[in-house]
Amino acid sequence: MKAFVYGGQNKMSLEDRPKPEIRDPGDAIVKIVKTTICGTDLHILKGDVATCAPGRILGHEGVGTIEAVGRGVTTFRPGDRVLISCISSCGKCEYCRRAMYSHCTTGGWIFGNKIDGTQAEYVRIPYAETSLYPIQLGADDEAMVMLSDILPTGFECGVLNGRIQPGSTVAIVGSGPIGLAALLTAKFFSPSQIVMIDLDNNRLAVAKRFGATAIINGAGGDAAARALALTGGIGVDSAIEAVGIPATLELCTKIVAPGGVVANIGVHGSKVDLHFETLWDRNITITTRLVDTTSTPMLLKTVMSGTVEPKQLITHHFKLDDILAAYDTFGRAAETDALKVIIEA
Amino acid sequence: MKAFVYGGQNKMSLEDRPKPEIRDPGDAIVKIVKTTICGTDLHILKGDVATCAPGRILGHEGVGTIEAVGRGVTTFRPGDRVLISCISSCGKCEYCRRAMYSHCTTGGWIFGNKIDGTQAEYVRIPYAETSLYPIQLGADDEAMVMLSDILPTGFECGVLNGRIQPGSTVAIVGSGPIGLAALLTAKFFSPSQIVMIDLDNNRLAVAKRFGATAIINGAGGDAAARALALTGGIGVDSAIEAVGIPATLELCTKIVAPGGVVANIGVHGSKVDLHFETLWDRNITITTRLVDTTSTPMLLKTVMSGTVEPKQLITHHFKLDDILAAYDTFGRAAETDALKVIIEA
Amino acid sequence: MKAFVYGGQNKMSLEDRPKPEIRDPGDAIVKIVKTTICGTDLHILKGDVATCAPGRILGHEGVGTIEAVGRGVTTFRPGDRVLISCISSCGKCEYCRRAMYSHCTTGGWIFGNKIDGTQAEYVRIPYAETSLYPIQLGADDEAMVMLSDILPTGFECGVLNGRIQPGSTVAIVGSGPIGLAALLTAKFFSPSQIVMIDLDNNRLAVAKRFGATAIINGAGGDAAARALALTGGIGVDSAIEAVGIPATLELCTKIVAPGGVVANIGVHGSKVDLHFETLWDRNITITTRLVDTTSTPMLLKTVMSGTVEPKQLITHHFKLDDILAAYDTFGRAAETDALKVIIEA
Amino acid sequence: MKAFVYGGQNKMSLEDRPKPEIRDPGDAIVKIVKTTICGTDLHILKGDVATCAPGRILGHEGVGTIEAVGRGVTTFRPGDRVLISCISSCGKCEYCRRAMYSHCTTGGWIFGNKIDGTQAEYVRIPYAETSLYPIQLGADDEAMVMLSDILPTGFECGVLNGRIQPGSTVAIVGSGPIGLAALLTAKFFSPSQIVMIDLDNNRLAVAKRFGATAIINGAGGDAAARALALTGGIGVDSAIEAVGIPATLELCTKIVAPGGVVANIGVHGSKVDLHFETLWDRNITITTRLVDTTSTPMLLKTVMSGTVEPKQLITHHFKLDDILAAYDTFGRAAETDALKVIIEA
Repeated sequence: MKAFVYGGQNKMSLEDRPKPEIRDPGDAIVKIVKTTICGTDLHILKGDVATCAPGRILGHEGVGTIEAVGRGVTTFRPGDRVLISCISSCGKCEYCRRAMYSHCTTGGWIFGNKIDGTQAEYVRIPYAETSLYPIQLGADDEAMVMLSDILPTGFECGVLNGRIQPGSTVAIVGSGPIGLAALLTAKFFSPSQIVMIDLDNNRLAVAKRFGATAIINGAGGDAAARALALTGGIGVDSAIEAVGIPATLELCTKIVAPGGVVANIGVHGSKVDLHFETLWDRNITITTRLVDTTSTPMLLKTVMSGTVEPKQLITHHFKLDDILAAYDTFGRAAETDALKVIIEA
Repeated sequence: MKAFVYGGQNKMSLEDRPKPEIRDPGDAIVKIVKTTICGTDLHILKGDVATCAPGRILGHEGVGTIEAVGRGVTTFRPGDRVLISCISSCGKCEYCRRAMYSHCTTGGWIFGNKIDGTQAEYVRIPYAETSLYPIQLGADDEAMVMLSDILPTGFECGVLNGRIQPGSTVAIVGSGPIGLAALLTAKFFSPSQIVMIDLDNNRLAVAKRFGATAIINGAGGDAAARALALTGGIGVDSAIEAVGIPATLELCTKIVAPGGVVANIGVHGSKVDLHFETLWDRNITITTRLVDTTSTPMLLKTVMSGTVEPKQLITHHFKLDDILAAYDTFGRAAETDALKVIIEA
Repeated sequence: MKAFVYGGQNKMSLEDRPKPEIRDPGDAIVKIVKTTICGTDLHILKGDVATCAPGRILGHEGVGTIEAVGRGVTTFRPGDRVLISCISSCGKCEYCRRAMYSHCTTGGWIFGNKIDGTQAEYVRIPYAETSLYPIQLGADDEAMVMLSDILPTGFECGVLNGRIQPGSTVAIVGSGPIGLAALLTAKFFSPSQIVMIDLDNNRLAVAKRFGATAIINGAGGDAAARALALTGGIGVDSAIEAVGIPATLELCTKIVAPGGVVANIGVHGSKVDLHFETLWDRNITITTRLVDTTSTPMLLKTVMSGTVEPKQLITHHFKLDDILAAYDTFGRAAETDALKVIIEA
Repeated sequence: MKAFVYGGQNKMSLEDRPKPEIRDPGDAIVKIVKTTICGTDLHILKGDVATCAPGRILGHEGVGTIEAVGRGVTTFRPGDRVLISCISSCGKCEYCRRAMYSHCTTGGWIFGNKIDGTQAEYVRIPYAETSLYPIQLGADDEAMVMLSDILPTGFECGVLNGRIQPGSTVAIVGSGPIGLAALLTAKFFSPSQIVMIDLDNNRLAVAKRFGATAIINGAGGDAAARALALTGGIGVDSAIEAVGIPATLELCTKIVAPGGVVANIGVHGSKVDLHFETLWDRNITITTRLVDTTSTPMLLKTVMSGTVEPKQLITHHFKLDDILAAYDTFGRAAETDALKVIIEA
């Protein structure tokens, strides 16, 4: 089968690989219908993710059709259309029983990282019954692909951890795909303000179209002052970090109101200086989280009922044969205005 | 009246001052019976607290008797024995209505800081009806003094923010009065382990006597490793910072389990490097808080029912006339083994 | 001044009464601009509310202008436009400090019940600083009147107690003003289904227009079966009772899913048989609540930001001189299709 | 093997039955070491539990040793000592993923009800990996048997649902094994009062010994008045029903404070009249729950750390051969003072 393979720092190729097979009773083999590329895949290609060895098939998102199941799988059968969660959950370890699938002792984020992933014609899914979600055949596959990672990530790490409430004020720092997913799902709770901060005017324009009540281009260096001004100098109830660098996390701590939350989504590569000499008495909360995908069943309902339309995040389409072009387009987002790119297998 | 006055950096004196008078309808004048010294008072004397101007009478803790009330006060009358909260609450601003008295727009921590405090024979109490608590005449005044600040601070900023639960594991970094107050009130929730970390063997011995299940002297530099070993390498559910320096907060982030909480109590004077490159996917929560004293009525009940005995924190007694000696004893705690010192007015 | 007075069972009149005066330092006198009639006023007129004695000026809702304030009031001044809360809160009793203003030991629901109310040209407001909310002069007075009682009641007793969440399923039994207020504010949380049940087709049509995803006329006796069918036989996550009779509360217990909530809003006049032989193992929660109006500041924000438009609930307008006609129209709602009627003072 | 078999209303026998065998890949066969009798077993013998057919081996509690595992089981192996949960959880249905194992679509309470149970030499355990808990060989087997049902039931349905907090006031109506289990685990949260109400003076004396702060014999008909008097007329924050009849649930609604919780544990056989005409504005919560056993891992920790000693609940010991005598003793508890009886297999 065709598969997109990480070959070591800055090396990638579309290769021919053997079709995966059932190994454990709980496995399923899924034929990929649509997949996509995540910012994390770019991190891997830069050589930043030590757990991902050269030779790995990348990808942790996708929709497909069950091809085969292990003898322990009773709730899925060949032909079922399924959504693949970016997080594998065994369903029985202490973390899974506490609904913290991200830290499943034998699962978590393994696809396209510790085991072969979804940017291929087929993928082997361990713990299929607790890591796949059935979807109706009529459902929009491309909208569904957004539920593998980006929508639950924005919602769980940003919106839920950020404790957004009706009438509350929100700032989202970073208007890329993840920040926009946080924006789309923040609206579930009817906050009175959603202020979007980024350096890219195109992404800010998208944010405005998606429902941001204000946008701030941070290039001027006055983002904190402008965000504070929008809340009468008090700050926002929830400041969501969706970039992953020290400056943006620090910005969040400057614009959060007393009693508020800084909810980090970004993948950080270095330490961050936090000014506890001004934060210690502010009654704030700072959260970190790798998505658990516990909200996936709920998000499926909201997509099916039309409450949220994640397809809006998709800007480009490619065939699996052209995945190198897809990576190029996604990697040069500032020029191509790419958000999410769909890859058809 | 006699009053302990801050005279600027490293200057202090016991002076004669005019007795305070009612200014606003909600005021009360309280004759102090017992008061104490807080670590924050030492910070002020070092010149570290910019809001506190020279000439200020210090002190934000104490028990006393109502001497006079403003015409707007209906729930207290002269002769009532009262507990003074370190936090003044107007009861009507947005923060007070949200039970975040620490950020009361005209109150908060003002005693011995922005207005004259309790280390004197008399003190004026603004917003008396929402900043004083009635206590029974039979109650133990010295135990009650521990409820002005230290017990609610340990409980709210450490135990409640730390989300301690039955069976959970706790580490408290810092075994001074605040850390010990957190220890005493952590036991309300029956955690399975309370690990106490400090550099002072005497304070660790006190912690052991107060119910710590393990003690670690951090001088060896292996505190993180030893705390992790006590939890099978997983880390603690709640790591409570009760010192206020970068090293101890960083230690907390090293020993907290995935899904756990780092609850900061310490008053920090500088920025802290936090390693978000390892924390971003740990699903942790970091909290800061100036005590709100919302738990004071509850703590009063637990002291009256004997559930907690805060008097254990008291090591020395002085008369108000000898308050300079009291400061000396409290300031040299490593030599004197002082925890809380009672000053009788 | 003109005032609408309860004269004993089924007796009412528009009378001339002395203008109220400041009695306590915390009082304000408010000149009424707009008020309305509540279903509870009809209960009083039937003689069902023992705490309300003949001679009482009715009404607990309204918007007005401050005419005078007591000497203890510092945050309002004559000329301020204010929203009157149906619940008076002293701000200092144990219940007020716990944000349960409904049970304020000297306040709670007193207007038009234990003290004279708002269906008059002027009203005396005790505890003005903690029972009035400032509103901007440009704000829509009629929308604001809906915030005195009906919107916080639907939201707190129905939506918050009902724990409505994104994607969850909701049934509201009773499509009168309160049920519709619950419907409008349920949408804050983006549930996937809101099923409205009533006997009045006009009210159901209004519900549909307001965003109900399904409507059920319960006259056929199959409301439970139809509501269950809409949720695949499982039941709804939140069943909100907005009528106040045994049959509707029992209906809620029949259609609630395992793990769900029955949130009672209705004012009941008799006992209710609940079938604990089938409920004991259903893991359900049943809640009751007199509105606390703690959500009023938040609701004000959502009205000002256009998130919710409570004016939709208003069907009729009257002058205070014609308040008897207003009561007649409101009392015959089944014929007049009245929801909320505005009375201009 | 020997097995205790339900033979239809009031019929029971110790019979010889074939040893159970593995049927599904997730099964385990457990050799019973110790088991016990539950009040529910008596209900079955009376013919009150329609789901339990004659011929069923009873029992849903016990500790044993793994004899064999299905090929899908990887976390247990023969020889492991295990605690059997009274609730079977598949780990993958919607309810299990929401941690509501009681309503597992293919599990829940099935042992000694829908499938053969634990009052036998061996038992087949479906979903072994998510329904058994490993215990250390050194652990006290008899204490562990209390963790199969009674301790999590008292804790989850009574204490957690009752939202017991430090300093809060609690009443437990019913001082049988379940009520006493609620008492033992209520102490985890350090309430200021635990009032125990029953008709049996022996059980009340046990309650006193276990830490009740007050006991009330309800025979005099003044239990409500006496419980109210103990809380200054306000009522208790948490009223826990541990009997299962209308009178005791109604009593709970009479003694609960405004804002409090009535947490039902009892298995009810008939409807209950609840006086909503007085409850509608009391801001109370009434909960029902079949135990989920989600707290079992936590309870295991508290037993191992000595925080709670459930062995105190055990009054009698029998061999499996004498199980008919055990049932007789347990069934005549008022005469025999039996609480929990241990049966050794």
